[in-house]
Amino acid sequence: GSELLAAERAKSNVPVEKLQELLFTKQVIERKKKVLDVLKSEKIFDKSQNYFAGRTDRFETALARAKKLRNLRVEHNWSLDEYRVASELISEPGPYGLHDSMFLITLNEQGTQEQRDEFLSKANDYKIIGCYAQTELGHGSNVRGLETTATWNPEDKTFVIHSPYLTASKWWIGSLGRTANYAVVMAQLVVNGKSYGPHPFVVQIRDLRSHEPLENVHVGDIGPKFGYNTMDNGFLLFNKVKVPHISMLARFSRVDPETNEYVRQGSPSLIYGTLTWVRSTIVMQAGSVLARGVTIATRYCAIRRQFQDRDAASGSAESQVLDYTMVQIRLLPLLAATFALHFTGKSMMNLYQESQKKMNASSTSSDSGNRGAGPEETRSGSDILADLHATSCGLKALSSTIAAEGLEVCRRACGGHGYSSFSGIGPWYADYLPTTTWEGDNYMLTQQVARYLLKSARSVLKGDAPSNDTTSILSTFRSRSEIGCAFDIIGSDGDLVSAFAWRASFLTFEALKHRDEQGKAWNDLLVDFYRLSKAHSQYMVVKNFYSALQSPETRSGVDSSTFDVLHDLFRLYALHTLEQEGSEFYASGACSKHQISLARTNTVMKLLQAIRPHAVRLVDAWGFDDWVLDSSLGRIDGKVYEDMFYRASELNPLNKITVDPYPDSEVLFRKVEDSVVKSKL
Amino acid sequence: GSELLAAERAKSNVPVEKLQELLFTKQVIERKKKVLDVLKSEKIFDKSQNYFAGRTDRFETALARAKKLRNLRVEHNWSLDEYRVASELISEPGPYGLHDSMFLITLNEQGTQEQRDEFLSKANDYKIIGCYAQTELGHGSNVRGLETTATWNPEDKTFVIHSPYLTASKWWIGSLGRTANYAVVMAQLVVNGKSYGPHPFVVQIRDLRSHEPLENVHVGDIGPKFGYNTMDNGFLLFNKVKVPHISMLARFSRVDPETNEYVRQGSPSLIYGTLTWVRSTIVMQAGSVLARGVTIATRYCAIRRQFQDRDAASGSAESQVLDYTMVQIRLLPLLAATFALHFTGKSMMNLYQESQKKMNASSTSSDSGNRGAGPEETRSGSDILADLHATSCGLKALSSTIAAEGLEVCRRACGGHGYSSFSGIGPWYADYLPTTTWEGDNYMLTQQVARYLLKSARSVLKGDAPSNDTTSILSTFRSRSEIGCAFDIIGSDGDLVSAFAWRASFLTFEALKHRDEQGKAWNDLLVDFYRLSKAHSQYMVVKNFYSALQSPETRSGVDSSTFDVLHDLFRLYALHTLEQEGSEFYASGACSKHQISLARTNTVMKLLQAIRPHAVRLVDAWGFDDWVLDSSLGRIDGKVYEDMFYRASELNPLNKITVDPYPDSEVLFRKVEDSVVKSKL
Ligand SMILES: Cc1cc2nc3c(=O)[nH]c(=O)nc-3n(C[C@H](O)[C@H](O)[C@H](O)COP(=O)(O)OP(=O)(O)OC[C@H]3O[C@@H](n4cnc5c(N)ncnc54)[C@H](O)[C@@H]3O)c2cc1C
Ligand SMILES: Cc1cc2nc3c(=O)[nH]c(=O)nc-3n(C[C@H](O)[C@H](O)[C@H](O)COP(=O)(O)OP(=O)(O)OC[C@H]3O[C@@H](n4cnc5c(N)ncnc54)[C@H](O)[C@@H]3O)c2cc1C
Repeated sequence: GSELLAAERAKSNVPVEKLQELLFTKQVIERKKKVLDVLKSEKIFDKSQNYFAGRTDRFETALARAKKLRNLRVEHNWSLDEYRVASELISEPGPYGLHDSMFLITLNEQGTQEQRDEFLSKANDYKIIGCYAQTELGHGSNVRGLETTATWNPEDKTFVIHSPYLTASKWWIGSLGRTANYAVVMAQLVVNGKSYGPHPFVVQIRDLRSHEPLENVHVGDIGPKFGYNTMDNGFLLFNKVKVPHISMLARFSRVDPETNEYVRQGSPSLIYGTLTWVRSTIVMQAGSVLARGVTIATRYCAIRRQFQDRDAASGSAESQVLDYTMVQIRLLPLLAATFALHFTGKSMMNLYQESQKKMNASSTSSDSGNRGAGPEETRSGSDILADLHATSCGLKALSSTIAAEGLEVCRRACGGHGYSSFSGIGPWYADYLPTTTWEGDNYMLTQQVARYLLKSARSVLKGDAPSNDTTSILSTFRSRSEIGCAFDIIGSDGDLVSAFAWRASFLTFEALKHRDEQGKAWNDLLVDFYRLSKAHSQYMVVKNFYSALQSPETRSGVDSSTFDVLHDLFRLYALHTLEQEGSEFYASGACSKHQISLARTNTVMKLLQAIRPHAVRLVDAWGFDDWVLDSSLGRIDGKVYEDMFYRASELNPLNKITVDPYPDSEVLFRKVEDSVVKSKL
Repeated sequence: GSELLAAERAKSNVPVEKLQELLFTKQVIERKKKVLDVLKSEKIFDKSQNYFAGRTDRFETALARAKKLRNLRVEHNWSLDEYRVASELISEPGPYGLHDSMFLITLNEQGTQEQRDEFLSKANDYKIIGCYAQTELGHGSNVRGLETTATWNPEDKTFVIHSPYLTASKWWIGSLGRTANYAVVMAQLVVNGKSYGPHPFVVQIRDLRSHEPLENVHVGDIGPKFGYNTMDNGFLLFNKVKVPHISMLARFSRVDPETNEYVRQGSPSLIYGTLTWVRSTIVMQAGSVLARGVTIATRYCAIRRQFQDRDAASGSAESQVLDYTMVQIRLLPLLAATFALHFTGKSMMNLYQESQKKMNASSTSSDSGNRGAGPEETRSGSDILADLHATSCGLKALSSTIAAEGLEVCRRACGGHGYSSFSGIGPWYADYLPTTTWEGDNYMLTQQVARYLLKSARSVLKGDAPSNDTTSILSTFRSRSEIGCAFDIIGSDGDLVSAFAWRASFLTFEALKHRDEQGKAWNDLLVDFYRLSKAHSQYMVVKNFYSALQSPETRSGVDSSTFDVLHDLFRLYALHTLEQEGSEFYASGACSKHQISLARTNTVMKLLQAIRPHAVRLVDAWGFDDWVLDSSLGRIDGKVYEDMFYRASELNPLNKITVDPYPDSEVLFRKVEDSVVKSKL
């Protein structure tokens, strides 16, 4: 393996470090390295038993790691960013996960100063450990349908938290199962017999000393999952538990203890911003999530030889499977996607930061953060924030789908060995998969995008001047409704991007016709909406990749032959996507049948060929350390078989067991060598 | 949940039992029930800890189950079929898996009478327990590249089995890791310095009493996998191990111990038949593999309510998510696919049996079974057997891909709860996944199909009379090359099938042009071949589903309104597939843009609506017992939430552990209740 990877690296002159700096900046790379060195030197982060251990052991280790990480943070005085980098490098969910994120964020953003003093400071010190308990057994996407109640009791100025049905049980709550002693509980606020919708309450659930559940609290872990088994997702039922007035997080609304009235105050648009931020993070991460799989599969397919080429002279060596076009067509567009998603995520983050600045200047929106499919008319189309929100929904759905499904493509490209845990792809895929469901189910989010696009299209039809990119592509499309278009998709990059805009606009106006002119039921349009959202998001990715190529950072960051490789990746991503969605492009008139067929049979194949020699260096540029990948197949030195063998033969606890194989003997395990038992607890 | 499922069942009059009999026959259903009753009454088959246990415990239980199953077979005098039914009902791979299948089959088919007496009778009695050791660390698909050698030693009339490199280590071998004491080892036969390619050798690897590896044998389990963890897939290295002459399975070739010459004898076409049989079995099973996921998701989506319909009056109840068209478009075409695959598998099995009869009459082929991409010119196009072989390759690839990817679609359709192991889909999916890789990697098999289609097309071009369905659709296409076609895909079923044939033929001649006229390299055509194989296999599925509808069994098996539902399923499967592959159908001229767009926006949506009321009864007809599904979400009584809660709260061993949550304490588990430790071993 080693020589093959060395030869691959010799064959290309893509400057790995330079490219890595373009992706991440020098500063970020150095920070990562510093943190990585600390982690590697701590025994508890040793990964060698990760793939073998059962759930209980893995959870135990994860808890030990979470504690260690917290202590290292204090010891090394790590910033929040450094702490997050460390978690990413460890690459497994841990029992403090929801405490560190949603619990602290919610206390900070939705608590008053008094509440921050009461809860946040203790939480920051891990004197209390919390989670974010929104989803219930019966309700996830539809937050407004939550059944847990918090009833204001004017007599003693308390709230009673109660789970009236089994389906009201909180469910899926990260860090709740075994770890947390506090929870932010979303519950229907009831004041004076009237319901005011879901509100957040800070509720203690376990004793701070004994860690036993408090009275009338039924809490536990929800059991094993497809992945994410180092996390204790939990359930939580309340039997009329009283909590004091301070429990209701009151920055945006409160119950006045004097008048017993419900009072709104301030603007909750910050929460809405948080949702957008969380989704943007998912977009940002999708590229590197996928890049792990692509790195592993590319390196392995470069060292894996299987069969002689059919047209080769007999006696020649077997081909590297990466040379088969059928392997290339699976991996190289995904390699291109890692860059496309990365640049898209970066641009989303920039937009988000800009919009936050603007919002701080003039805060107007007054809508509380709602997940899932809310009403159609909430946001105005002429608003950058609304655009950002809709874009983040669509891109969250598209990018996490690409990453999740792409990882499985990578795994399968590795043939049989991809199925071994030592490939490192399967476990990573399994842990990532819920990203397609949480923070807005990927199918449902598309309704929000469609709603926004319909709204924008209506504003364009009304003749409003374009106020953002979406309304601007829609008006361009409208303005050419009697002229049509002629995009040179293969010859011109700009035209290629425009073809994506055209198709998305076409689908938008089609959907609008169905809804407004033909009065079709919303439910009958969901499939169209899904396609529309995908089209718009694909346009965004292609546009962002293109802009990144045009940016001064890129132009000055790499030499011209590297630029050409990036440019090839851009074209591969765009043309391969276009070809996959051929019938929509064709139906919209964005290009001709002939162009699509040329793209498919000619251009894409040539781009594969052009990128192929640089594949290994391109994945090297993602800079994954072997320790992070924890993969036999993806080793940077190509010693795949040696590593597979070592792990199977030396580390595998099952090999300490001698069985009795005969059906007429009731003995199962005849002999169990010591070390197994040790490794079990 | 119960009322909702009851209401679903009340709403349709699909006769569940009748339909089930049509799918399986009364006799098979009764046999299944009889076996199931036996299994349910045995404590060892209790599934309640399956989802919780770690690998070692699961393997231990699987071994106990394998033994019990064998003993039950003897006790109840079960036929091979009944034994297989029992394994299917248990639904987990077990340590006798490869002994029961490939080991026994190979001894039987490739051994001489003397060898059968020596090995097979002991194997049948489980006095020796074996496996099938073909794949190596370095070679899977390319069997001819295997590196293990078996060198004939004329002096003492023995073979020396040797693994010259680390990559020669056998790998992935089911039942080998801990259980087997014998292996059929595929090794390069070397006689007199000359290599004769891979041949099967029966080799003892562990002591029959102590079960310790024999001298110079290094054997063990290869470690954890994405699924299949109840099976001990193993590795195996030989350091010059001597085995006697009888070890080489000699039905089709042998080394003459007198002359020391290599001798071929008899016709190995039987082995080639076995490969086809194994692949046909995979096609046959794909329908029911997928049906488990579809059953679970359909039932759950029928009881899951989330959101009010956007166009509904306020105050009305939340919708069943199965009513959302975006859920229907994911699940109902898969429901249709379960029937499509089932009927296709049945027809493949019938063809296989017919061909075996014919072959026994006149055996001519003399080609040994080769997996993976072999030479282009091996088989004649005018041969039912060759057609069956190619069809089985293409359908194996298509059907296992549909089943595997469909299961993930089902899982995701269940939202968050789909991610819990209690959904029953994830674990099932993970165990099924290798089917896309073994018995011919799904991507590579498409080369064999393409090779066969090219060959057939050449014979048509030469003017040979059509000798089977493939050559017949190709000549029809040719004969209309200057006339084109006009298929009424939405109005006529026959035309719909013909449109699939047309597109497959079009792609065949396109590929032929590339290869024969333009002289393109084989490697440059792999992507085209993949598409071609898919197109041809989709045609086969559509055709077989259509034929099944026309058959007297179907016509007489169900009443006319049930027939209409099956007919709707057929059209949904065909039109949805056509719409997904729209640009190929359009490019081939098989139908117009307008037809495709009508199919997509109109016909498919109407079919969803027509099938929706029958969805629950249709999955009921698959007849999965709750015990078999082992799924909270898929319970036949709809008590989803109760069951989720029970498993999490009562069965989950993690809840016996009380942690110390604070980072400043080194204690991890403060208290572990007894039962956990017990459940751990
Ligand atoms: C590993 C994991 C960790 C989690 N951690 C947390 C946590 O810490 N805290 C927390 O509060 N929650 C958590 N969750 C819950 C998560 O947020 C929800 O599972 C998610 O929001 C999806 O909601 P659901 O499960 O109710 O899906 P459902 O809404 O029930 O979806 C079921 C199906 O119906 C479809 N559907 C539903 N409504 C519509 C509609 N209107 N139109 C069309 N289709 C529709 C969906 O697409 C899906 O196919 C976690 C979940 C997982 C899997
Ligand atoms: C769970 C499991 C159980 C198994 N049990 C057994 C067993 O009991 N006994 C046994 O002998 N084996 C067993 N196997 C091995 C199995 O048969 C092989 O893994 C399978 O044949 C694939 O071969 P490979 O792993 O060498 O893939 P490779 O051939 O190395 O494939 C790697 C990649 O290269 C591509 N590729 C390879 N060649 C070409 C080509 N010519 N053209 C285009 N693309 C190409 C493939 O599509 C794939 O993407 C098992 C495997 C698994 C996962």
